[in-house]
Amino acid sequence: MSCELCEADGGSVLWRDELCRVVRPAVEGYPGLLRVIVNRHVKEMTDLAERDRLMRVVFAAETVLRQLYHPDKVNLASLGNVVPHLHWHVIARFVDDAHFPDPIWAPARRAAKPRPAVTDDALARAIMAVL
Amino acid sequence: MSCELCEADGGSVLWRDELCRVVRPAVEGYPGLLRVIVNRHVKEMTDLAERDRLMRVVFAAETVLRQLYHPDKVNLASLGNVVPHLHWHVIARFVDDAHFPDPIWAPARRAAKPRPAVTDDALARAIMAVL
Repeated sequence: MSCELCEADGGSVLWRDELCRVVRPAVEGYPGLLRVIVNRHVKEMTDLAERDRLMRVVFAAETVLRQLYHPDKVNLASLGNVVPHLHWHVIARFVDDAHFPDPIWAPARRAAKPRPAVTDDALARAIMAVL
Repeated sequence: MSCELCEADGGSVLWRDELCRVVRPAVEGYPGLLRVIVNRHVKEMTDLAERDRLMRVVFAAETVLRQLYHPDKVNLASLGNVVPHLHWHVIARFVDDAHFPDPIWAPARRAAKPRPAVTDDALARAIMAVL
């Protein structure tokens, strides 16, 4: 069966090692949304021997979003109902973003506010510094 | 400021140690939903020194849901936009549950199907065996 996260990176790649990659997908209203995607096709965290190492990358993504966006909250989620290839959403949330306080998968409550511009390069450098 | 997860357990307590507790809240249509809640008031994972230990409990909850429910997918999420007291949702998902393949926070797509009855006690014993 074809899998879109086996076939493509899933966004601008900010960092990568043998286990996983940190990408920044283009998600309307959420420039501070990163995804940490396992390179090989694994479905659940408890199928992944290297889950502690993966979480270190997830927490590095959280650290970097906090440094560069100063969000009101960070949301972490590994769902994979649509694409059952292990990936984490790491999302900088703001009280005035389109869905707050709901998760970003709920219906929008308002128009997205613009956020300070943070380049891929600035994010990539910050991740490298943390990892 | 008052915090509902400082003031109450947040569900039937299945397991507890000094760091955290595993509870089963009553969530319509999702009997296979556990929450792993840090006992003290901490907001983000990167504020928590014991985050590796907390994730071991989260993964134990996933293991136990897989053993007892055989779900089609497990969803893991730490959001905390409404209650900014660190807690994880660990959710057994089924292709015919009320929201699949959407997250459970999206609008429902259909009525919830009944699931096999799994008692709190069976879940508690399974968590103990894993941890």
